[in-house]
Amino acid sequence: MARAADVEMMPLRPIGTLHTPWRSVAECPRNGRQPDPAPLCTATVLPDYIEGLRSIEGFSHLILLYWMDQVKSPELSFTPPFDAQPRGIFSTRSPRRPNPIGLSVVAFEGMTGTDTLKVRFLDCIDGTPLLDIKPYLKTTDCEPASTMGWLEQHATRRR
Amino acid sequence: MARAADVEMMPLRPIGTLHTPWRSVAECPRNGRQPDPAPLCTATVLPDYIEGLRSIEGFSHLILLYWMDQVKSPELSFTPPFDAQPRGIFSTRSPRRPNPIGLSVVAFEGMTGTDTLKVRFLDCIDGTPLLDIKPYLKTTDCEPASTMGWLEQHATRRR
Repeated sequence: MARAADVEMMPLRPIGTLHTPWRSVAECPRNGRQPDPAPLCTATVLPDYIEGLRSIEGFSHLILLYWMDQVKSPELSFTPPFDAQPRGIFSTRSPRRPNPIGLSVVAFEGMTGTDTLKVRFLDCIDGTPLLDIKPYLKTTDCEPASTMGWLEQHATRRR
Repeated sequence: MARAADVEMMPLRPIGTLHTPWRSVAECPRNGRQPDPAPLCTATVLPDYIEGLRSIEGFSHLILLYWMDQVKSPELSFTPPFDAQPRGIFSTRSPRRPNPIGLSVVAFEGMTGTDTLKVRFLDCIDGTPLLDIKPYLKTTDCEPASTMGWLEQHATRRR
C-alpha cells in the first residue's frame, strides 16, 4: 500500500521555465524529434536553483521533467488519430495523463549566462514550468534493443 | 516567466505503489542496474487506473516516475562519496532534488493479474508511490552516443 500520510504531501515547485516556439497544444509537435531541423529551445532556471547546475557541462543529453499545465483533463484511454483502436494512456506518450508530468530527452548545447540551458528536442508549450533536470546516463537510460509494442509500426525518428 | 497562477495548481496523485526489496534509503542500490542479478520488483496500479494499461504488452521497457517520499530535504550541491568536489544536484541522479521525482527505465516482464506489472531495475524503497508509467521509445529516449560529463569515469553498467 502507498503511505497515505506521505502521499498527501507532494508539493511540487517550479525550478524554472521552458521556452519553445509553440504557443498552444495544437501547435506542439508529436515529439521533440519530429521537427526537422529541431529548433533551439531554452530552459531558464530560477535564481534559487542555479547552484544545482554545477558540473552540468559535459553531458551531451539531459532529461527534462516539466508540468504540462495547459493540457486537458486526463484521458485513461483514447484512439490515436493514426490508429484504429483505443490505447491506454500508460502505453502512449499523450500529455493527458493522471499526473501531467512531461519528459523529454534533450540534446544539451551549452549555457547562455549562468541560468539558461540551450536544448533541442523539446515538444511542449512556451512557458511550461520546469520541474527537474537529470543528466542522461547511457548506462541506465539507454536501451537500444527495446521493443515498442503497438507503437513499433507508427514511430519514426527524424534527426 | 512561468505562469504563476497555474504553477500553484500542481496536484499530484499516486496511481499505484512500487514494491522492491529495499526497506530504507540506505539499503537502496546506487541505481537499478547495480544489483547483479537485478531482483524482480512490481508496480501495482490502483483500480481507477487499470484502464490506462491497455496495450502495454509488447513494450520491453517502461519509464516509471515515482515520488521519493522518504528522502531527506533537497541538497542543491554535494560532494559524492566517490568524488573529490561538489556537484550540482542537476548533474547527478541523487534523490535529494527540489522535486523528488524518481525516474527509472525498467525492463517490463509482463503482468500478474490485471493490476500488477513485473519489472526489473528499480532502485527505490518498497512502498514508494507511483506517479506515471510511460512506454520507453527507442526513437526518442535512446541516445547511445551520449556523453556523461563528470560521471563518465565513475559510471559502470552491470546487467
